Amino acid sequence: MNNAKPEEIVLGNLVSAVQMLQNCAEFSLLVPEVRVNLVYALPGAKTADEVAAVDGRITVVQGFPHASGLPGWGASDHMARLIIEVRKYDPAVNAGINFKCDKEVIEVVKKYCSERDILFGWIDRTREPNEVAEQDRSSIPWKIKQLETNYGGIPKLFYEGEGWGKEPLFVALGIDAVEVAGIAIEIAQRYRQRPG
Amino acid sequence: MNNAKPEEIVLGNLVSAVQMLQNCAEFSLLVPEVRVNLVYALPGAKTADEVAAVDGRITVVQGFPHASGLPGWGASDHMARLIIEVRKYDPAVNAGINFKCDKEVIEVVKKYCSERDILFGWIDRTREPNEVAEQDRSSIPWKIKQLETNYGGIPKLFYEGEGWGKEPLFVALGIDAVEVAGIAIEIAQRYRQRPG
Amino acid sequence: MNNAKPEEIVLGNLVSAVQMLQNCAEFSLLVPEVRVNLVYALPGAKTADEVAAVDGRITVVQGFPHASGLPGWGASDHMARLIIEVRKYDPAVNAGINFKCDKEVIEVVKKYCSERDILFGWIDRTREPNEVAEQDRSSIPWKIKQLETNYGGIPKLFYEGEGWGKEPLFVALGIDAVEVAGIAIEIAQRYRQRPG
Amino acid sequence: MNNAKPEEIVLGNLVSAVQMLQNCAEFSLLVPEVRVNLVYALPGAKTADEVAAVDGRITVVQGFPHASGLPGWGASDHMARLIIEVRKYDPAVNAGINFKCDKEVIEVVKKYCSERDILFGWIDRTREPNEVAEQDRSSIPWKIKQLETNYGGIPKLFYEGEGWGKEPLFVALGIDAVEVAGIAIEIAQRYRQRPG
Repeated sequence: MNNAKPEEIVLGNLVSAVQMLQNCAEFSLLVPEVRVNLVYALPGAKTADEVAAVDGRITVVQGFPHASGLPGWGASDHMARLIIEVRKYDPAVNAGINFKCDKEVIEVVKKYCSERDILFGWIDRTREPNEVAEQDRSSIPWKIKQLETNYGGIPKLFYEGEGWGKEPLFVALGIDAVEVAGIAIEIAQRYRQRPG
Repeated sequence: MNNAKPEEIVLGNLVSAVQMLQNCAEFSLLVPEVRVNLVYALPGAKTADEVAAVDGRITVVQGFPHASGLPGWGASDHMARLIIEVRKYDPAVNAGINFKCDKEVIEVVKKYCSERDILFGWIDRTREPNEVAEQDRSSIPWKIKQLETNYGGIPKLFYEGEGWGKEPLFVALGIDAVEVAGIAIEIAQRYRQRPG
Repeated sequence: MNNAKPEEIVLGNLVSAVQMLQNCAEFSLLVPEVRVNLVYALPGAKTADEVAAVDGRITVVQGFPHASGLPGWGASDHMARLIIEVRKYDPAVNAGINFKCDKEVIEVVKKYCSERDILFGWIDRTREPNEVAEQDRSSIPWKIKQLETNYGGIPKLFYEGEGWGKEPLFVALGIDAVEVAGIAIEIAQRYRQRPG
Repeated sequence: MNNAKPEEIVLGNLVSAVQMLQNCAEFSLLVPEVRVNLVYALPGAKTADEVAAVDGRITVVQGFPHASGLPGWGASDHMARLIIEVRKYDPAVNAGINFKCDKEVIEVVKKYCSERDILFGWIDRTREPNEVAEQDRSSIPWKIKQLETNYGGIPKLFYEGEGWGKEPLFVALGIDAVEVAGIAIEIAQRYRQRPG
């Protein structure tokens, strides 16, 4: 299998990641209102069309996480552009997943990061200048720049706080989709077992 | 077919409504970030378990609206409770659907309502008292009360403006799921053909 | 809900039946090579377009029965025509389901029928005259006539034996889709628990 | 992407192949009663668990080919074992797809093969010895041996004629899933446009 195309490696890794998530009932608890985007960018991707994502996002059906469609190119916009932007600072990042953010999830993720020695971060959307928020394309560069400035690097796990008209969301970044799905699953299992 | 169960009538009407939406590519343009809830409440429903909804919500796959799962009981929480609350003021309402809300959709819906002589409304979430917003269960009664107070009845088409951490959303109400899907489709077609 | 349309009652009953089947892992064992058709005919249906069926049939995904699409009109041909033909002899039949047929299933169904006092039957395809088998539309009337002739009525559970190029299949008939799904589930549970 | 796992290359290639098929309405015409299996074996695969296939097979929903589930390991039995057996004679084969076989498809495929200089074959199931047919595991080796003996190699396109209780089926073999999907699509397009 020497002549493997990067496109197929990306799609196959996404399928493996989706299977992991679909078998993890606990992850249903972390599906946010906007549903889950799981994305994986080709090397050197410049536009969302070079980033593969689960078409229709991952939702919850019959109590289990459920991919609405197959992984495909250009199936995500926001998360795809976020990965492309992150790579300007950290070229090792290829994939990302988002999930629910509330006070309890924040506690679980903070503890997870401190145990694993993972850099944890957050973006305060209330500090986003009006002229940035009003232009659709300028919001992501501002957010990633904030992370870089505040943490001296891009945290592998961070959340975007609530914004005006915007649900707060966690993002996990990693080398591939299987890695970020694995992180999300570990957090879901801890969240499920939390006391209280 | 004299002995039809209300449960089956509700589920069958939802299937018909979903088929209408799935065949309407334009409706993809009105799928909001939180995806579409389509719900239909049993007569006298008191809890979300007596309201049927599309399991996993309606998302977009391969460019078309796509129901992630079958209609089922208890598959929606927020929209289900909203219908139950609306019925305290207008018992003729059984079903509802939500869809994307932005400046252009607002213009399209306003024009649609004025042509059809339909009462149009909106809820200003910035007026929601803190003590209401903080309690998950008190927000919906406050919203529906606002509509009743401001419009002298519950508008069949209204939107909830942006909130802190909340996407703005339109809601269409009606007698059954086929009626509200039909309204949403007409609005999608007008939105698709808008100038500019 | 006085003005319920027969179409919606049929679709809603099919949804309920599909939910029952999807929750029954054992039924996976009875999914035949040709997959499962589940159909429900409108009163007085004359063509397959007046018979609703699960679009794409019911298959097995992740070990559970899975409806490929929603119930819809004209989604089955063979089973739809079979129900229409059966009604010429037994107007109380509206719905049917097919499932796997092998020696063990035959034993399970025979025992089930004798305990429940249900008429059991089978169609010997080797007796089908060549001129019947060659004409697509004449095969079903011949089969149902065989049942009527051999059993003095249409058995609620019968199988079509192997044919040339044809998988053997069981069929359960009933008043609605929920009834036939319930029968299929009971047989699946007995089949699952059989000794050996 | 140097460290690509063979598993991911296989799954990703299957996703690409499924997307091709799902976008080809004509291929619906070639979906047989038993639905379509699309499989891709790992290098050196010895059991069906080392062969990936579309979970739940490919069926037809809303008039288009539709993969019921994601590609996964062990999701096919018969086609998986067929590929493993073929490789004993032709190690370059990794993937296969089956599709409908009738007189008209046979004519289309024969013409396609003669134009492309592809070896065409068929297996006469009426010649299968009883002791072979009765043992589930001995049927495939007999069939592939027949092909080798009759054609001096394994044809890339062949059909298995009708058998007792068995639908006739075409099989296309190739290096990967994208190749065999491409062949099936070309045949579907020719079949769609055939005169008469």
